[in-house]
Amino acid sequence: MGLSNVEAGFRNEAGIETVIGVLRQRLGDRLQTGEALRAQHAHTTTYIPGQSPDAVVFPESADDVKMIVRACADHQVPVIPFGAGSSLEGQVNAPHGGISIDMARMNRVLQVNAEDLDCTVEPGVTREQLNSDLRDTGLFFPIDPGANASIGGMTATRASGTNAVRYGTMRDNVIAVTAVTASGEEIRTARRARKSSAGYDLTRLFVGSEGTLGVLTSVTLRLQGIPQAISGGVCPFPTVEAACNAVIMTIQMGIPVARIELLDALQMKACNAYSGLSYPEGPTLFLEFHGTDAGVAEQAELFAEIAADCGGGEFQWTKEAERRTELWKARHNAYWAALQLRPGAKGISTDVCVPISRLAECVTETQEDIASTGLIAPIVGHAGDGNFHVLVLMDTENPAEIAAAEAFVGRLNARALAMDGTCTGEHGIGQGKRPYLSLEMGEGVSVMRQIKQALDPKNIMNPGKVFSFDP
Amino acid sequence: MGLSNVEAGFRNEAGIETVIGVLRQRLGDRLQTGEALRAQHAHTTTYIPGQSPDAVVFPESADDVKMIVRACADHQVPVIPFGAGSSLEGQVNAPHGGISIDMARMNRVLQVNAEDLDCTVEPGVTREQLNSDLRDTGLFFPIDPGANASIGGMTATRASGTNAVRYGTMRDNVIAVTAVTASGEEIRTARRARKSSAGYDLTRLFVGSEGTLGVLTSVTLRLQGIPQAISGGVCPFPTVEAACNAVIMTIQMGIPVARIELLDALQMKACNAYSGLSYPEGPTLFLEFHGTDAGVAEQAELFAEIAADCGGGEFQWTKEAERRTELWKARHNAYWAALQLRPGAKGISTDVCVPISRLAECVTETQEDIASTGLIAPIVGHAGDGNFHVLVLMDTENPAEIAAAEAFVGRLNARALAMDGTCTGEHGIGQGKRPYLSLEMGEGVSVMRQIKQALDPKNIMNPGKVFSFDP
Repeated sequence: MGLSNVEAGFRNEAGIETVIGVLRQRLGDRLQTGEALRAQHAHTTTYIPGQSPDAVVFPESADDVKMIVRACADHQVPVIPFGAGSSLEGQVNAPHGGISIDMARMNRVLQVNAEDLDCTVEPGVTREQLNSDLRDTGLFFPIDPGANASIGGMTATRASGTNAVRYGTMRDNVIAVTAVTASGEEIRTARRARKSSAGYDLTRLFVGSEGTLGVLTSVTLRLQGIPQAISGGVCPFPTVEAACNAVIMTIQMGIPVARIELLDALQMKACNAYSGLSYPEGPTLFLEFHGTDAGVAEQAELFAEIAADCGGGEFQWTKEAERRTELWKARHNAYWAALQLRPGAKGISTDVCVPISRLAECVTETQEDIASTGLIAPIVGHAGDGNFHVLVLMDTENPAEIAAAEAFVGRLNARALAMDGTCTGEHGIGQGKRPYLSLEMGEGVSVMRQIKQALDPKNIMNPGKVFSFDP
Repeated sequence: MGLSNVEAGFRNEAGIETVIGVLRQRLGDRLQTGEALRAQHAHTTTYIPGQSPDAVVFPESADDVKMIVRACADHQVPVIPFGAGSSLEGQVNAPHGGISIDMARMNRVLQVNAEDLDCTVEPGVTREQLNSDLRDTGLFFPIDPGANASIGGMTATRASGTNAVRYGTMRDNVIAVTAVTASGEEIRTARRARKSSAGYDLTRLFVGSEGTLGVLTSVTLRLQGIPQAISGGVCPFPTVEAACNAVIMTIQMGIPVARIELLDALQMKACNAYSGLSYPEGPTLFLEFHGTDAGVAEQAELFAEIAADCGGGEFQWTKEAERRTELWKARHNAYWAALQLRPGAKGISTDVCVPISRLAECVTETQEDIASTGLIAPIVGHAGDGNFHVLVLMDTENPAEIAAAEAFVGRLNARALAMDGTCTGEHGIGQGKRPYLSLEMGEGVSVMRQIKQALDPKNIMNPGKVFSFDP
């Protein structure tokens, strides 16, 4: 969380100036250099200080992207892809300056193949836009990271969210991408078949590469049929351990739960206060089941039995949409509720992910850690994946608080790694988690660097992200 | 299918001789050079001529593998990983000679984490051995490619099989690997969390790399709870198109079918003859459903409605184990039944995979193509994935037949690619499919070559496989 991960390096001033001249001539007012717009394209949703690009360009086609990347490659100028700006670890900052490629105008749904349950979209399409476009097909795109992120950004950070426990992450739901590599060539990583054993998995190499290997120009996604029925509910537990035991049994029994979210006691207290609710202020699971009418009832009933076996309180659930929304209100408003625990503070979200057998232990130790530091930091977890978020409510102008929060995040990551987990389940490395990647991956980072060296020898693709790299 | 893909290249005779001397000293009788054993480690289950390694070694630990790879690296000698020898496209041949690393003695199940539904095994563990070991845990490893393949080999070829439609392929079920790279270092590609956004997806890079980037030393796998109930059945259709329509509707409706297999008319005829059955000799779907007792009945009933809507005949199904085995007998014996269509012939299996909307068209055109060539070649498909196999029954001593079969495979691949499919859904590229990879991937193959160059600059890791590479 410190500035140690955000070195502002060498700026190729001459190259940047030349490229801006070249691109202005070709793009006209689709290149902008106003300070406010540039600042808006640096990162805003983290504690990490913004590092503005020198210009923002708005391509409208893959050919535009190729032209832009080639110009930048010719003059060794950084290229920073920008989607919706909702990433959390400094992914769109420009520590070495350069050109931000804003994908907002590449927002067409190019193809929907209903029979194959897939679609191909430009990277600037947002998640909500896609689902709105799909409304009449009976299909939906399940991945929901919370924010109305762009599909390109979600692909680049290997995003997931509440229903990954059922539908997987972007890793599982991207069939293919097209991308412009550092040499300015566009490649396609796969065809549209649901599976393939043809060569290296370039699709998965680009998913999660955070713009460091190329700029995405289209993404082919798996879609799902909208379930016939949905049931949902909420269940309190005496301890985090009891709640996690219920999660483990649910997964082991093969109940295809669509969402299984853990809110800790502090978060529940915040939710009650914010939404005028009266839930028990202890660890609580929020669940959702997708399936047939009979299936979602059966799943809920099976879960109720498991919850009872694990010492949980009453599992309130329903198949009725309005009542379901009501039961889930606390979860939906969790972020806004948490912010009210300390009005005026900024909420900085961090995430780790551990094997689910270690989740209770990791959450409990983290709560103790939070208490000992005096931070205010509720916990919300995608419990079925062993993934949880800590929202640290902090005064980002107070150096002592920043230092305390930074030290806490360091301990949180060390704790997750010691439990055979990862320093990020879904936010990505960006700048913020860079110090932890080598702790997690060891020599694996050298292999990542070798790949980066091979595909982007001049280090123009989103430099300074994921790992330090000095070609 | 021609020998054009199987160039026998430069042999580093001096290096090979030196390495054999070095390794013999260190491994004693765990290094073998007998001709029969070497021939057995070259490929035997394809039309591709065997190309024997110069020696076979039997490591018993990751340290042995490191030592072997380092010796081979020092002297620029090829390293060819060998699992169960059940690959189909020449993956274990040694076109430049070298050392076959037989993983048979690295066959320990290292760790089973029942609460996390995962396990870690050495690469020589076979699929059947693993499931036998797991028997008492209530868990199983679902991927079933037919052969009793090794987990290392399945990982290396990104294998799948009949139930990938429900449980995914090796891509989806490998959590992490450890591998010894060309430099002789062992890396771990991920920790044990169910998801991660930490850097490049090295796990997926090794899955499907066919030994060309390193030698696997362990594989961490996702497991599944053994379903409470299984139902299964069989349903005839008037046309391949009608059968495929039923498959598409089943997937679109979100019925979590565990297996949905298509046998064509010729294959059904073979099955009737071989097993003394009396099924209609037309396109037929074999299905299996996993879930709760009520769930598997509901799924079967829903499918029966879909089948009727698509013009199918009676869907015979059952939840009773013995009767289910009986209904599935034709599918289980399909390979042996097919061989009896031409006693004495060799059955050469090839596979392609297309978007399921194109499956009927691809199968029908392929049947017409087979008819026009005079080949005898039944079709069995993993229809839910759009993946199908053609088993060409041929006299592999007859050059005219080889030429006809080779030309047929070329047309089959071109047809699949024209339908936005892949030249291999699950067998991998090896030597046999090399000519088709660049047709499929275009410039993507250059990116694969760049990665290979970065990680194995001397080209010692299973050279001559996946793509041609000349460092």
